[in-house]
Amino acid sequence: MKAIFAHGPKDIRLTDIEAEPLKPGEVRVDTARGGICGSDLHYFNHGGFGDVRLKEPMILGHEVSGFISELGEGVEGLKVGDLVAVSPSRPCRECEYCQQGLQNHCMNMRFYGSAMPFPHIQGAFRTSLVIDSSQAVPAQGISPEEAAMAEPLSVGLHAVSRTGNLFGKTVMVTGCGPIGVMCVLAARRAGAAKVVAVDISDFTLQFAKKAGADLVINSLTQPDAFDALRTGKGQVDALIECSGSEAALTNAITCMRPRGIIVQLGLGGPMSLPMMAVTAKELELRGSFRFHQEFRKAVGFMAAGLIDVKPILTHTYGLSAFQDAFEMAVDRKTAMKVQVAFDQ
Amino acid sequence: MKAIFAHGPKDIRLTDIEAEPLKPGEVRVDTARGGICGSDLHYFNHGGFGDVRLKEPMILGHEVSGFISELGEGVEGLKVGDLVAVSPSRPCRECEYCQQGLQNHCMNMRFYGSAMPFPHIQGAFRTSLVIDSSQAVPAQGISPEEAAMAEPLSVGLHAVSRTGNLFGKTVMVTGCGPIGVMCVLAARRAGAAKVVAVDISDFTLQFAKKAGADLVINSLTQPDAFDALRTGKGQVDALIECSGSEAALTNAITCMRPRGIIVQLGLGGPMSLPMMAVTAKELELRGSFRFHQEFRKAVGFMAAGLIDVKPILTHTYGLSAFQDAFEMAVDRKTAMKVQVAFDQ
Amino acid sequence: MKAIFAHGPKDIRLTDIEAEPLKPGEVRVDTARGGICGSDLHYFNHGGFGDVRLKEPMILGHEVSGFISELGEGVEGLKVGDLVAVSPSRPCRECEYCQQGLQNHCMNMRFYGSAMPFPHIQGAFRTSLVIDSSQAVPAQGISPEEAAMAEPLSVGLHAVSRTGNLFGKTVMVTGCGPIGVMCVLAARRAGAAKVVAVDISDFTLQFAKKAGADLVINSLTQPDAFDALRTGKGQVDALIECSGSEAALTNAITCMRPRGIIVQLGLGGPMSLPMMAVTAKELELRGSFRFHQEFRKAVGFMAAGLIDVKPILTHTYGLSAFQDAFEMAVDRKTAMKVQVAFDQ
Amino acid sequence: MKAIFAHGPKDIRLTDIEAEPLKPGEVRVDTARGGICGSDLHYFNHGGFGDVRLKEPMILGHEVSGFISELGEGVEGLKVGDLVAVSPSRPCRECEYCQQGLQNHCMNMRFYGSAMPFPHIQGAFRTSLVIDSSQAVPAQGISPEEAAMAEPLSVGLHAVSRTGNLFGKTVMVTGCGPIGVMCVLAARRAGAAKVVAVDISDFTLQFAKKAGADLVINSLTQPDAFDALRTGKGQVDALIECSGSEAALTNAITCMRPRGIIVQLGLGGPMSLPMMAVTAKELELRGSFRFHQEFRKAVGFMAAGLIDVKPILTHTYGLSAFQDAFEMAVDRKTAMKVQVAFDQ
Repeated sequence: MKAIFAHGPKDIRLTDIEAEPLKPGEVRVDTARGGICGSDLHYFNHGGFGDVRLKEPMILGHEVSGFISELGEGVEGLKVGDLVAVSPSRPCRECEYCQQGLQNHCMNMRFYGSAMPFPHIQGAFRTSLVIDSSQAVPAQGISPEEAAMAEPLSVGLHAVSRTGNLFGKTVMVTGCGPIGVMCVLAARRAGAAKVVAVDISDFTLQFAKKAGADLVINSLTQPDAFDALRTGKGQVDALIECSGSEAALTNAITCMRPRGIIVQLGLGGPMSLPMMAVTAKELELRGSFRFHQEFRKAVGFMAAGLIDVKPILTHTYGLSAFQDAFEMAVDRKTAMKVQVAFDQ
Repeated sequence: MKAIFAHGPKDIRLTDIEAEPLKPGEVRVDTARGGICGSDLHYFNHGGFGDVRLKEPMILGHEVSGFISELGEGVEGLKVGDLVAVSPSRPCRECEYCQQGLQNHCMNMRFYGSAMPFPHIQGAFRTSLVIDSSQAVPAQGISPEEAAMAEPLSVGLHAVSRTGNLFGKTVMVTGCGPIGVMCVLAARRAGAAKVVAVDISDFTLQFAKKAGADLVINSLTQPDAFDALRTGKGQVDALIECSGSEAALTNAITCMRPRGIIVQLGLGGPMSLPMMAVTAKELELRGSFRFHQEFRKAVGFMAAGLIDVKPILTHTYGLSAFQDAFEMAVDRKTAMKVQVAFDQ
Repeated sequence: MKAIFAHGPKDIRLTDIEAEPLKPGEVRVDTARGGICGSDLHYFNHGGFGDVRLKEPMILGHEVSGFISELGEGVEGLKVGDLVAVSPSRPCRECEYCQQGLQNHCMNMRFYGSAMPFPHIQGAFRTSLVIDSSQAVPAQGISPEEAAMAEPLSVGLHAVSRTGNLFGKTVMVTGCGPIGVMCVLAARRAGAAKVVAVDISDFTLQFAKKAGADLVINSLTQPDAFDALRTGKGQVDALIECSGSEAALTNAITCMRPRGIIVQLGLGGPMSLPMMAVTAKELELRGSFRFHQEFRKAVGFMAAGLIDVKPILTHTYGLSAFQDAFEMAVDRKTAMKVQVAFDQ
Repeated sequence: MKAIFAHGPKDIRLTDIEAEPLKPGEVRVDTARGGICGSDLHYFNHGGFGDVRLKEPMILGHEVSGFISELGEGVEGLKVGDLVAVSPSRPCRECEYCQQGLQNHCMNMRFYGSAMPFPHIQGAFRTSLVIDSSQAVPAQGISPEEAAMAEPLSVGLHAVSRTGNLFGKTVMVTGCGPIGVMCVLAARRAGAAKVVAVDISDFTLQFAKKAGADLVINSLTQPDAFDALRTGKGQVDALIECSGSEAALTNAITCMRPRGIIVQLGLGGPMSLPMMAVTAKELELRGSFRFHQEFRKAVGFMAAGLIDVKPILTHTYGLSAFQDAFEMAVDRKTAMKVQVAFDQ
């Protein structure tokens, strides 16, 4: 079997590795699709981000789907041939945070393709994968492409759940890459009355529009479009900040109502917060980090036809063209979600 | 009658003004005590703060108590001679925020002694004051000194209510001036299991200790004392940040549990937030701004003997010594709360 | 002008009344459609319900739309000819509950067509109506029929908001008359992952299906269909009980998860609660009463195409056939929502 | 070693049993005190309650403290001789509810002294007990008597946590047996502004008074005392119902504010709810069932001197007088909490 390893900046290699043994409670999955995520691109472009750095070759990838090829002893409710979405979230189930239902804060998390601990947590971009049966979410009724998008959709679902109840609310999403568009889809599904999407690229804004945004604003070319959102003390109830841009955050805050909620998706560096506005309006800024329970819900929403992620997928490459896939994923003017077809 | 006007930096004057007429629904109060607040000191020291600047002489003060001397037509439940705490919060009751129960976000707020709109909202440091009867909270069973501390206590109660339920939680308060100590009192009363108070002054920390803090830390001289609060992913459930210091906030964040709540009391300038920690731990930072409903509760807690603010009052000056009162209030190494006795 | 008065059981009359004068801040509306509600039917059938009894003739009706025919002094944002949905919720804006944002608990509420206080609050089934401009919600982009359904939709939105966040949850609605179906629509829009509708009539269940229910159960003919919802400790996260039937409530409770939420819409009589299950599962039963803020949101959801109430309307009668309209509305096997066309 | 077995109504026996082996991660505890709870009395008086019936002899008891006599392999943070409060809550840590932080709803709970599953879960009234180290909560600074009251205090803490934030609220507790008085203590500690205790016995009300109730009402002899709580739409924000009496619940509801919270502690039988009031006031009734996380907090509150349970303990009997202890515990006019001294 083969796996895609990152060795350093611009150095990724397809390498043969040994198949893993199958233990009780596990299943073997033949990988179908693997989506390239922003964090994969950090390793690909720079060998890491912030203090998180490659110290040894690491298999990339955490957005995968596949077909079950072998069942471990005692596994129930799954069968060979089933299409499954593979959850990359592997908490210990034992620590104090797991016992509080906060698995995304597990003290011993093994999330695929993370260089944070050492030795690194190897990723899921392999032609075959042995997983715990609890990671395998049956994906009947959706395609392998969609199943491999359960992961980024889960990130959006978690961010939306962090905002609290959006029913009837006005929501702004800043930064409309794949994660931002997932947040637009999730906010729409969660009953937002109005969804405003903001970016500096018309290319990505068209995906936000397709995902259900009522209003899209290019903050570079349409700065006046925010004026209508600044009337009174502001008109936006909730902001989901996916850009990591201080300017985007500061501008959005001028549009927010008193007691508005800001959810910041994890991008790392320090950001300066206009505390006068934060305190005078009693805004709330909440971090959002990965997901856990949302993975199964993501598959459910897609299977029920309640959320449609298909328009976000712009490119699929065969495994042998994996280098092209990564190069394309970097090109933010042409690509949204890029997947590798591990079975082609 | 007389009032204390701020004319500019270090220029405050006691000036004769005309008595106000009494309208139906109002009461006249002979002022007993007036506490000097940090915002009064901003006007006294610098003529304002940030964009908020004196543009005309303004009467200072918003922490006052007094005795009713005259009842307007139709006023019920109050009588001449009653000691009352005077709420400085005067919302319009009509705007969308008043109609949502968020009176501290009233579109037309007239909070005593604020230079923010122009003409300024004149303050309450007058020998006599005409107020709406709803501002007059009967203060039987407590002293005029305590009644004049209902206002800063309300700020603490509101901050604590912004943290959500503190019952059984570990709470840190950073910055132990009068407001910080009020937060210690409020957190203790709200059922916190453990209260940690942090400051850079041993003088203020002794007041935090007296207010019920289980642990006080001088962050300059005892930096190692935080280590025990950093075990696991952090041990602090909630932080009430009253210092306005970026260093205090950043240090406190290293002690916080995942999903911890930070309440920032309003001090103005931008602060840099360590977003990696905020998102990875999914912290929540919430602004806290003034109060409204809490004022009546503050008086109630004191009258029931459930909160004791008396130790915070360190100095009282007669009206003629008002300049000395302000000078003393500036001296953070000697004074906590300084009051002017308007009836002496 | 004419109005539909209830005089007693089965005694409703169309009577000429004098037009009201128009005061500043008010608008005159020529009524277009008026929907007949369950409470109207209580007066029509029985002269009231419980302790709420007709003591004088009362104009019925509180679900109306119309066109503005005259603007009072100082009214802005509306013009003659505008279609408006008329909110029947007229709180005082002054009492303690209004000042808490709980207008549906106003101490001085004047909700159209209520026999509860005496003299009764006269209703809105009149050919012309003078209302406060704040009651007039512009309904551009929807039909008069839909605008007159903003009221029952608001009841559904309020019930759903009482359940808390439904995003990704499994919701059961028991009782699928017009209000129950509105709850199905609202729960679907609020992001429920799965909506189960229960009734004892296949006729009403087909409307629930059309409104988006994933599963409909006739509890008389399909009692075994609940078994799949009883696995583990139960599978239902939230129940919206619209039937007023103790049997429906008790049965639904057997399907509920620990910590499940039950919202009971107001139907009056005492109901016996299986407290062993309520405590052992720590269920929460919450009353839901009318609405207020939701009215404007209801119009917004319809205008944005996010909620479609049209299938619920089964019959429309001209004003002269108002008796037939009431008779039809009573026939639960043929009619869902019945409206009177006041302009025909 | 010896244990107190219930064989049937009024048939309890002290019997020799074999000591249990000690496994890794476990500790052996020499029991010091054991408190008799209401559910123990149900078995003692009637052989069970509702459908929960003794089908084989069962060791009673779940409120115990003791001294560690032996440490299993790998146990850290405890040592021989330590006084510990023993948590009777033994969830599986694996099921879906444990993984949500809802351990009191564990699918496989083994709570001491429960006849609910068969074979029954044997209780803790033994002279020596082998427990998991996670059940052993160090109780330095408090007495064995207090440590054995951590359990009923935990029930009160959990009930109070179910009410949500009580800070500044008016709380009523109906039914002032040991659990009701624990709720008074917990509500007071949680920052309630006013606590009203209601019972039909002056004997128990004096314990409520001592626990901090501001107002005690004997509902048989002082029915008019409720009038002041019924002004407006009601004055009580939260009700903790510990009596199981429909009359007490119905009466209390007449005193409740709109949106008031009722927490019902588990007593079993069906209760009729006045749904007109529940819906018109939008009350919330929430079940409360046992506890889990609260046990450690209970010990902490006692050790910090923040909650004092000592006045609740009225009687202690040596082990040989265990029959007298049970007889006394039944006598609600003389006894509050009765404990057996297993080491005497």
